[in-house]
Amino acid sequence: MTEPIRRHSMTELIVRKRDGLALDASELSWIVERYTDGSVTDYQMAAFLMAVLWRGLDTAELVTWTEAMLHSGEVLDLGRVSDAKIDKHSTGGVGDKVSIPLAPIVAACGVAVPMMSGRGLGHTGGTLDKLESIPGFTTALDPGRFVEIVERLGIVLAGQSETLVPADRKIYALRDATGTVESIPLISSSIMSKKLAEDLDGLVLDVKVGSGAFMKDVESATQLAHTMIGIGAAHGTPVVAVLTDMDQPLGRAVGNANEIAESLDVLEGHGPPDVTELTMLLGEEMLVLADPGRDRGEARQALDEAVASGRALEVFASVVEAQGGNPRVVTDRSLLDVAPHARPITASRNGYVTRCDAMAVGVAAVRLGAGRAAKEDEVDHGVGITLSAKRGDRVDAGDLLGEVRYRDEHRLAAALALLDEAWEISDEPPPQRPLVLGTLP
Amino acid sequence: MTEPIRRHSMTELIVRKRDGLALDASELSWIVERYTDGSVTDYQMAAFLMAVLWRGLDTAELVTWTEAMLHSGEVLDLGRVSDAKIDKHSTGGVGDKVSIPLAPIVAACGVAVPMMSGRGLGHTGGTLDKLESIPGFTTALDPGRFVEIVERLGIVLAGQSETLVPADRKIYALRDATGTVESIPLISSSIMSKKLAEDLDGLVLDVKVGSGAFMKDVESATQLAHTMIGIGAAHGTPVVAVLTDMDQPLGRAVGNANEIAESLDVLEGHGPPDVTELTMLLGEEMLVLADPGRDRGEARQALDEAVASGRALEVFASVVEAQGGNPRVVTDRSLLDVAPHARPITASRNGYVTRCDAMAVGVAAVRLGAGRAAKEDEVDHGVGITLSAKRGDRVDAGDLLGEVRYRDEHRLAAALALLDEAWEISDEPPPQRPLVLGTLP
Repeated sequence: MTEPIRRHSMTELIVRKRDGLALDASELSWIVERYTDGSVTDYQMAAFLMAVLWRGLDTAELVTWTEAMLHSGEVLDLGRVSDAKIDKHSTGGVGDKVSIPLAPIVAACGVAVPMMSGRGLGHTGGTLDKLESIPGFTTALDPGRFVEIVERLGIVLAGQSETLVPADRKIYALRDATGTVESIPLISSSIMSKKLAEDLDGLVLDVKVGSGAFMKDVESATQLAHTMIGIGAAHGTPVVAVLTDMDQPLGRAVGNANEIAESLDVLEGHGPPDVTELTMLLGEEMLVLADPGRDRGEARQALDEAVASGRALEVFASVVEAQGGNPRVVTDRSLLDVAPHARPITASRNGYVTRCDAMAVGVAAVRLGAGRAAKEDEVDHGVGITLSAKRGDRVDAGDLLGEVRYRDEHRLAAALALLDEAWEISDEPPPQRPLVLGTLP
Repeated sequence: MTEPIRRHSMTELIVRKRDGLALDASELSWIVERYTDGSVTDYQMAAFLMAVLWRGLDTAELVTWTEAMLHSGEVLDLGRVSDAKIDKHSTGGVGDKVSIPLAPIVAACGVAVPMMSGRGLGHTGGTLDKLESIPGFTTALDPGRFVEIVERLGIVLAGQSETLVPADRKIYALRDATGTVESIPLISSSIMSKKLAEDLDGLVLDVKVGSGAFMKDVESATQLAHTMIGIGAAHGTPVVAVLTDMDQPLGRAVGNANEIAESLDVLEGHGPPDVTELTMLLGEEMLVLADPGRDRGEARQALDEAVASGRALEVFASVVEAQGGNPRVVTDRSLLDVAPHARPITASRNGYVTRCDAMAVGVAAVRLGAGRAAKEDEVDHGVGITLSAKRGDRVDAGDLLGEVRYRDEHRLAAALALLDEAWEISDEPPPQRPLVLGTLP
């Protein structure tokens, strides 16, 4: 398929993109292949990525680019899984542990969930880091083991295999160092190439919007959502995108082990309202994607029953065990690490909480050690923040706004510098802000 | 002067430029210094350069950037040269050998010319490659030797020393590979950092405009000229820019040794009208820059006398000898290499030459071996093209349009494929097109 392209042609292709001209399929595939095999240099790719950030990729270019990334490595074959295979992806937020309860609830409804998640990035948490709070749990599965667990249990909760979409791993690292992360075509192709490599029948995207999200406004989030839906459509994979609020953290727990505990609360039917609501709403979308004839009310009922009956919790215990974790965690939360020290944060005045800033809380959690400042840092699963008061809550001076769990005084001080400014309290209650801002297409 | 900047800050600076924000002096200096010493990577610099190509540099940024490049290595000290020191730089064209007769003519008028030239780039020829057609002539002088020759003779014709402006050498190579050549701030800072490192009292720029130039129209050439004049002014060095036509080659000889022969013709007072006129015009500008009180008519008279008296030719012979070349070349042109084979190109019809395309002739010359397709290629000094008919000339079918001197049949064929299309002949004579399109400021 790929045409031979002569020496120095990468420079010509950079110039074409720089000048706003479109590249054809063979040229884009050539770039991805040659960058993956190392014959296109990092510096040429960096210039090309900046030109893409500037000029964009049109629909045809984006589809070709994503397919080339998708085919840069192994692609899963889930042909022996007879149930519909649906995954969910979040663009990343603070306190967003939804994948953890969602996957077993949906799997308990007879839909296969071959879930591949990521690690914390910047101020946002990562599902893999959270899952590794469970003693023994491994998220590093080779494709054979990944497929085997899905075939047996209808669910798997893993990291991305090294053999899948190697182009994305390499391009992502380069984007991170070269200021080329914030590009809708590059973000879309990165997400979609990995998701489409999972051999899915459908994908639900949770596109976060707000101060704690990569997309700060509904407009850019909508554009990102439409772009990913378009890539899915071109590949023949239906995609539904739900735009949800990320101005404040989701739920009350921000960290790792504490987010597992909150996920168990959701699985037991008593999670915080926002996490529970979003889990169920995304579950509905997954069930309807799996069976487009299904009534939305029935879907919700099935999800509720999966929780109420305890089946969702059982499915979670089974996948924890299959991935080497201690399944007793579902009944014995003392197996989860908790950092030794606690520090309360209290309200300085009476009033209504008008802001509980997701970015501030997210960065504070990273400073505590719940995330990584550099790639090689270790995550401390036991540290984190519990939010007692969120947007709209009435508080009096001295009331608890939140609690910090920490291990190290210096890290605490660095976190508090942000947390002291994270809550805003005013005389008037803030206007309502819905959790769900829209569903596409 | 440079502030300490923490790890990962290059990424932040890329993002700032990418987002259209200005960088301050310490940040820009830091980038140049750290890229020169290798602590900023090629891939980060490539992304930054593409962001600069996109967003530009404002006047303050450009001055800082250029000064940082200028100070990335050694700077010449010509303090012991009492005459005014004036150089001339051309943005590059086809058949542009003007520097070679110009420098000795001006030096013969009592102005010091510490000339640093470049090699052929793309389809354009390079003064150094042409000079090296002279047996023994070396253009590689260390700064000490360079200064010593200027002090003694008032002229030197050399390449850029490795120790001057190392930042430019590194950045230029990266730009060449990453599609970031065509940026007015990057072109300007590259030229001006090298010229200002020569410790000049003034600089005359020949900004080429047309199909055979990097600047295709007067508008972009004017912008480039104004940008360089501004950098010079900020540094305290007066700069005059002359915009000149490069739609067709300059003179009749395109190659290397044949351009030395044509340069000798100019020094002897019988060069082609366009080369002679441009040489004298640029010489006037150099003499007036050296002594702003000088009358323009007197300046021209001095230049004419330097040629008519033979002093300019003597100066040329003396600098050839000082730089290891055989000075007898000025009287014995058989010392210059000529490729063994000749092929005429003839007119296919009667009419007026309406076009003699500089780009086609320039690329044809490179294909013959007069320039380099890749950096490591050797230049063949004996090959080239002699133009017999140029724009406005009346020809009959069968008349000679030009002659190709070649060594290799395959290279000849590759050159002819372009040369067969290089001349356009029509019934009507073309409108007049002036050689000089404007002088700035």
